[in-house]
Amino acid sequence: MACCGNCFCCQCCCREGETRTPEELAILGEIQVEEDEILPRKDYESLDYDRCISEPYMEILEGMNSKKTKKYEAVRWMLMFAIGVTVGLVGLFVDFFVRLFSQIKFTLVGDSIEKCSDKGCLPLSLLELLAFNMTFVFIASVLVLIEPVAAGSGIPEIKSYLNGVKIPGIVRLRTFLCKAAGVLFSVAGGLFVGKEGPMIHSGAIVGAGLPQFQSITFKRIKFDFPYFRSDRDKRDFVSAGAAAGVAAAFGAPIGGTLFSLEEGCSFWNQGLTWKVLFCSMSATFTLNFFRSGINFNKWGSFQLPGLLNFGEFKCSDGDKNCHLWTAVDLAFFVLMGVVGGLLGALFNCMNKSLAKYRIRHIHPKAKFIRVLESLLVAMVTTVVIFAASILLGECRELSSPTTHNTTLSGSEDINSTIRQFFCTNKTYNDMATLFFNPQEAAIHQLFHQDGTFSPVTLSVFFLLYFLLACWTYGLSVPSGLFVPSLLCGAAFGRLVANILKVKLGMDIYSGTFALIGAAAFLGGVVRMTISLTVILIESTNEITYGLPIMITLMVAKWTGDFFNKGIYDIHIELRGVPLLEWETEAEMDKLTASDIMEPNLTYVYPHTRVQSLVSILRTTVYHAFPVVTENRQNERDFMKGNILVSNNIHFKKSSVVSRAGEQRRRCQSMKSYPSSELRNVCDEQNAAVEPAEEGEDLLQQMLERRYAPYPNLYPDQSPSEEWTMEERFRPLTFHGLILRSQLVNLLIRGVCYAENQSSAAQPRLSYEEMTEDYPRYPDIHDLDLALLNPRMIVDVTPYMNPCPYTVSPNTHISQVFNLFRTMGLRHLPVVNAVGEIVGIITRHNLTHEFLVAKLRQHCITI
Amino acid sequence: MACCGNCFCCQCCCREGETRTPEELAILGEIQVEEDEILPRKDYESLDYDRCISEPYMEILEGMNSKKTKKYEAVRWMLMFAIGVTVGLVGLFVDFFVRLFSQIKFTLVGDSIEKCSDKGCLPLSLLELLAFNMTFVFIASVLVLIEPVAAGSGIPEIKSYLNGVKIPGIVRLRTFLCKAAGVLFSVAGGLFVGKEGPMIHSGAIVGAGLPQFQSITFKRIKFDFPYFRSDRDKRDFVSAGAAAGVAAAFGAPIGGTLFSLEEGCSFWNQGLTWKVLFCSMSATFTLNFFRSGINFNKWGSFQLPGLLNFGEFKCSDGDKNCHLWTAVDLAFFVLMGVVGGLLGALFNCMNKSLAKYRIRHIHPKAKFIRVLESLLVAMVTTVVIFAASILLGECRELSSPTTHNTTLSGSEDINSTIRQFFCTNKTYNDMATLFFNPQEAAIHQLFHQDGTFSPVTLSVFFLLYFLLACWTYGLSVPSGLFVPSLLCGAAFGRLVANILKVKLGMDIYSGTFALIGAAAFLGGVVRMTISLTVILIESTNEITYGLPIMITLMVAKWTGDFFNKGIYDIHIELRGVPLLEWETEAEMDKLTASDIMEPNLTYVYPHTRVQSLVSILRTTVYHAFPVVTENRQNERDFMKGNILVSNNIHFKKSSVVSRAGEQRRRCQSMKSYPSSELRNVCDEQNAAVEPAEEGEDLLQQMLERRYAPYPNLYPDQSPSEEWTMEERFRPLTFHGLILRSQLVNLLIRGVCYAENQSSAAQPRLSYEEMTEDYPRYPDIHDLDLALLNPRMIVDVTPYMNPCPYTVSPNTHISQVFNLFRTMGLRHLPVVNAVGEIVGIITRHNLTHEFLVAKLRQHCITI
Repeated sequence: MACCGNCFCCQCCCREGETRTPEELAILGEIQVEEDEILPRKDYESLDYDRCISEPYMEILEGMNSKKTKKYEAVRWMLMFAIGVTVGLVGLFVDFFVRLFSQIKFTLVGDSIEKCSDKGCLPLSLLELLAFNMTFVFIASVLVLIEPVAAGSGIPEIKSYLNGVKIPGIVRLRTFLCKAAGVLFSVAGGLFVGKEGPMIHSGAIVGAGLPQFQSITFKRIKFDFPYFRSDRDKRDFVSAGAAAGVAAAFGAPIGGTLFSLEEGCSFWNQGLTWKVLFCSMSATFTLNFFRSGINFNKWGSFQLPGLLNFGEFKCSDGDKNCHLWTAVDLAFFVLMGVVGGLLGALFNCMNKSLAKYRIRHIHPKAKFIRVLESLLVAMVTTVVIFAASILLGECRELSSPTTHNTTLSGSEDINSTIRQFFCTNKTYNDMATLFFNPQEAAIHQLFHQDGTFSPVTLSVFFLLYFLLACWTYGLSVPSGLFVPSLLCGAAFGRLVANILKVKLGMDIYSGTFALIGAAAFLGGVVRMTISLTVILIESTNEITYGLPIMITLMVAKWTGDFFNKGIYDIHIELRGVPLLEWETEAEMDKLTASDIMEPNLTYVYPHTRVQSLVSILRTTVYHAFPVVTENRQNERDFMKGNILVSNNIHFKKSSVVSRAGEQRRRCQSMKSYPSSELRNVCDEQNAAVEPAEEGEDLLQQMLERRYAPYPNLYPDQSPSEEWTMEERFRPLTFHGLILRSQLVNLLIRGVCYAENQSSAAQPRLSYEEMTEDYPRYPDIHDLDLALLNPRMIVDVTPYMNPCPYTVSPNTHISQVFNLFRTMGLRHLPVVNAVGEIVGIITRHNLTHEFLVAKLRQHCITI
Repeated sequence: MACCGNCFCCQCCCREGETRTPEELAILGEIQVEEDEILPRKDYESLDYDRCISEPYMEILEGMNSKKTKKYEAVRWMLMFAIGVTVGLVGLFVDFFVRLFSQIKFTLVGDSIEKCSDKGCLPLSLLELLAFNMTFVFIASVLVLIEPVAAGSGIPEIKSYLNGVKIPGIVRLRTFLCKAAGVLFSVAGGLFVGKEGPMIHSGAIVGAGLPQFQSITFKRIKFDFPYFRSDRDKRDFVSAGAAAGVAAAFGAPIGGTLFSLEEGCSFWNQGLTWKVLFCSMSATFTLNFFRSGINFNKWGSFQLPGLLNFGEFKCSDGDKNCHLWTAVDLAFFVLMGVVGGLLGALFNCMNKSLAKYRIRHIHPKAKFIRVLESLLVAMVTTVVIFAASILLGECRELSSPTTHNTTLSGSEDINSTIRQFFCTNKTYNDMATLFFNPQEAAIHQLFHQDGTFSPVTLSVFFLLYFLLACWTYGLSVPSGLFVPSLLCGAAFGRLVANILKVKLGMDIYSGTFALIGAAAFLGGVVRMTISLTVILIESTNEITYGLPIMITLMVAKWTGDFFNKGIYDIHIELRGVPLLEWETEAEMDKLTASDIMEPNLTYVYPHTRVQSLVSILRTTVYHAFPVVTENRQNERDFMKGNILVSNNIHFKKSSVVSRAGEQRRRCQSMKSYPSSELRNVCDEQNAAVEPAEEGEDLLQQMLERRYAPYPNLYPDQSPSEEWTMEERFRPLTFHGLILRSQLVNLLIRGVCYAENQSSAAQPRLSYEEMTEDYPRYPDIHDLDLALLNPRMIVDVTPYMNPCPYTVSPNTHISQVFNLFRTMGLRHLPVVNAVGEIVGIITRHNLTHEFLVAKLRQHCITI
């Protein structure tokens, strides 16, 4: 028992309410569900990344030669380019309209305020601003009502998708339209949201959709281009699209590539990574090309890398003693990393509570409630920034612009975005400068404005932003988190710089501290590592920031991880997505495959009657079925074989696990402590077993049964409820896996033969016919039974995957996990030493929660 | 047959001498060996990346909890930091001494030349230069004699190591010392070599050696730190060290990380990548810190990123119309990429021929011949650069230095490195400026010097450099290839820029063209993709160069790949290293695991006598042995089981492959065409089979044999030569794998029990005892037989790997390859549907050459 004492590291959000010891918890129930703990939901299905090589695929192979392979490859490259360009154009579209709307809004309201600060009609200006913002947010909110998946940043969804979980509707054209248009209005509406997350999601949808050349949303979009119709190919394009999204959003093609690796990759594939990088580059430079052309009218040059860039960090030329950062500053960066991690953890904790509240109290209600909530947040945000600018802003003098005339575009931008509201000439309102600008401009201000912001302003700004951003994330509008976090963190960093520079008189570069503050807070919130480092380095276009950014992010992540998970992981968890981690903990190796597998199998035979297939498909929800034969002949020998003789020395074949034996073991172990549902199953099965135990032995009973007439006339029917345990768990030799979608397809297309025919008479489907309906295969319940002859027989062997990866029952969890995760499997059969299938492992058997529960159980029973 | 027509894409170096059709070749012999084709050698062994979970490891697991895991993790981070810092210091050391020696050399010789150009004593100056260069090269050459593995760039070796091939001596301390000191002298000696490749190799050795805390070279270095003693852990540290090497050499931490991913990674591991990035960052910034401190005396600032950096690409401030590059330039970049690819292919082709010549004519001779060759190259190089500077250099006017006073350090450098040899005041000798400087300074000149170089100078420089660099690479001195390639390519790019700017009057930025030329040529030579793109972007510290660099590298790679492989792959091939590619071609899926596996097995039983073990170990060279039991009982049932009855419909279990059946099939297929060695084996075996075929059936014979007394009294002895095929290939149930090193270890430590004891009496070894001798386990031939009792019995079951990954015989090659490559396996047992082992797959069964040969054979026999 002690062995497990340390393993239940409870990741409670705020480290409270967890007073029982793990042992107590374990005894209370097998899977102890806290009232507000959300377990992985069973209804999320895996994507299918394993390549099934069955006969239809072999046909393609026959015609395959290096010329065709190259053509195929060239098409991939072209599609990557197309995806990159499209994502770039989407970014351009979003950016253009956000700018347009913001400009109109701020110009009109700004004029009104300047007029009104003399006339005293400020409430009128506020109303004007409110009208703008609430209209925009209303539109965004309504768009999300049309397609609810378009809410939020989309990164949790993309992360789940790349991890291999199917989330319905996540890569549809309708989602794309709602997301791209929605984010435009939610940003223009003055909410504290960014457009980077939604850009990434949009990019992923472009990647998923473009190579399909068809759409479910618009049925008319349908070209005859039947390639890349598999989850495997789609995943590759989605990675590329997501990377292109990052690349366009931050002007960071390398960072984008690493993002899609970090979030989605299970194994490194050089060719794919190279294509993804190309796609990202295309996106960045498409955007760059058009933005440079439109903004500077210099078509053909490339001067504006990403939607969000951080400007140029540069010492003024005259100052020879100026350094962007020194070794001494590193110590402060580490401290800022710690604070950033703490703040991020607090942010996540608050947002998690809020999200739980929303799930419980808002989502069940009518949909328009969500719109109202969005409008409420928009209103509060507008009033707060208006009030703060009037009441708390300080008028500060402009720094002399002479030191700046050498830098190219940075300072022009900066001085054009300061706001003079309520201030006399030559001074500006520092709070209004931050609030009455697009967020990108505010970030530039914090990074590069030499004129100082007052500590009070920075503190108030930070606090307001922190709270409002936290409230906003999770609303039913498309909303990114990067820019608000950066802005919030930049204010914190600038505050630190102010203190060090003014109070302590240190010789530092304020912009670097603002940048590090931004990195620290963002790192504390999202907990990304490699990709975030590279994205920030690329956004600053300054390689020497590598070390400080990396150290800050590292410290922020470690600090934050001490308290809770990253915000995206929290939202994934709240949705109950069965995400697979990177690796299992070492102590999970105490478990083996047989401990976690699902031994209750529904299987099909190589040749099965249509009626049985239909009944199996209608009564179960499994997505794959093992194709098995019963090896009745082997039973006795298998039992004998348990002790093999070799060189006159006995070697006990304890490694051979049978399904019946395994099930018995489980039931016995389960008797030892109270449990809910599983207990009942076991009791029932024990009842069935008991006579055997009373008698002589299970073995004996099995042997006897062999010579008795078979209990069921049609053994290919689904296991009936009246079967005894031994019948239900009789030995089955494993031959392959067949997917539900394949079976339904075979039935619909009438692939079967009559009893008096040979199986060769069965019509054959080509690869195209098998995959035509991808990704939405017909459901069994749509099948018209009248068209089927129930007595016909289906030979599934040409279509099954004849040699999927398998593991032996004694394989340790780390090895099972590695295989499953790395190869992107969906079903992993567990096959014992004599070739019998004893169970099946799916994603749900490998989630952290499931493993912890099993380990707890394991520790109790040994 | 036609199906294979296109598959033998012969990668001949220069596309000549290949006139026979593949079919003809196939008929001529099973494995058609060209006279100068080098096949993968069998004596390279795989590293062992698979984690074997056996009982000794389970002990560790028992004591494992999250606290210990965290401690372990913290040690890793610290080691990563230590590796980074050490690699940075090594870089500093090499750089410092190269600079020192070069400075002394060039100052003395330069003075002498300036004096002599008046006095006419130039031959004296030449002699002086010769003396310097030849002394340095002699030292470098002698160092390589001490440790021959230290020759060359080391990248092919590191690539092989990370791919999973054990190359003796590649990560030893002695190699490190010879490499680091050697490269210093070979660079200082004026050879056209770079120090980047050797830096990467040195970094990898630091990574491999540091965490071991002991050394074979210096026995006295031995701390008690018995962690990370496995190939798996070592590989992680080697990746980190190699990445740190790149990071230090180019100031490119992200590029370094991607380098180690691209060259070595098989599966993406987020945690490891993050550590590798940290290690790279540590290396870059350690180097940066010390170089900034030493050179500028500004301790604490970070201003000199890598050993090689490209300076700042920047338009002069006044010029508003200046662009680094425009969309129009991209077309030229593509063309330059094509030319770079062609030049690179030519370079590789010439170097390959040279390397073959060296292997055949120089390596077999006495070692001092190699030293003489190095000295010859040094002499020729020296004379050539001296003569070229005098005879072909042009005196050109210095551009006005006024436009330059704003840029910080770049122009100062540039004007300090121009050479006035033989020229009057205010002019300089352009050829001497390129030749009489360290290579880094010459690169800077080509990238940033506004004053032009004459087209003649550039052409001559390019040609000389091309030829001499090609001759130099492959000498017995430590020699990198990056800097010579960059310099060569930069000259080419600058030449293009000259033509476009002066002849065509285009408004372009010369530096960009020089950079793109450098990228194109380097890409054409080394054919790296992702990592090279990122390294070059980081070296220029200009993110906007991303797209042009990427497109150039892509085009250069594609062009070059049309002719031959990259230079590193060529050298790996010449060494006969069995490297595994990224993936197999699609048409290889016509083969299955049973086609490529090795069916001749040497196996051990769970309980084996010491004498048998010793005899097996002494008579074979295999590195792992399957642990099997004979399942004689199963034989008949297996044969019966071939046709299983289910639901009254026959399902032919054709998927069950037996070893004997497989072997018979192979032999029959081999009869159809002439072959050399394999034929004989088969004939012999056919002879053994024939009686059975004459009689009734193989099956019958097998059944009869079962009741006859067993032919061999000690079935645990190695298969004897007189056995018939059926005896040799009798069915064996697979239980696990045990390594040779483990068996030897068990014997040495006397782990065995007497015949009359139970196997529980056998002493148990702990995990530490099992791994104590890593990485050089004792050989079986060192074992003192007198200490062993041959009648004792060893129980290997606690130490074997009880559940390695296995595949079924019908698994397609792509799936087998994926599993093997991704999981970093060394031995992959092929197990049939009833749990019998039928063969084993190792690295040698998966090399491209082997697969092509098998595919050829497959196409002939069907």
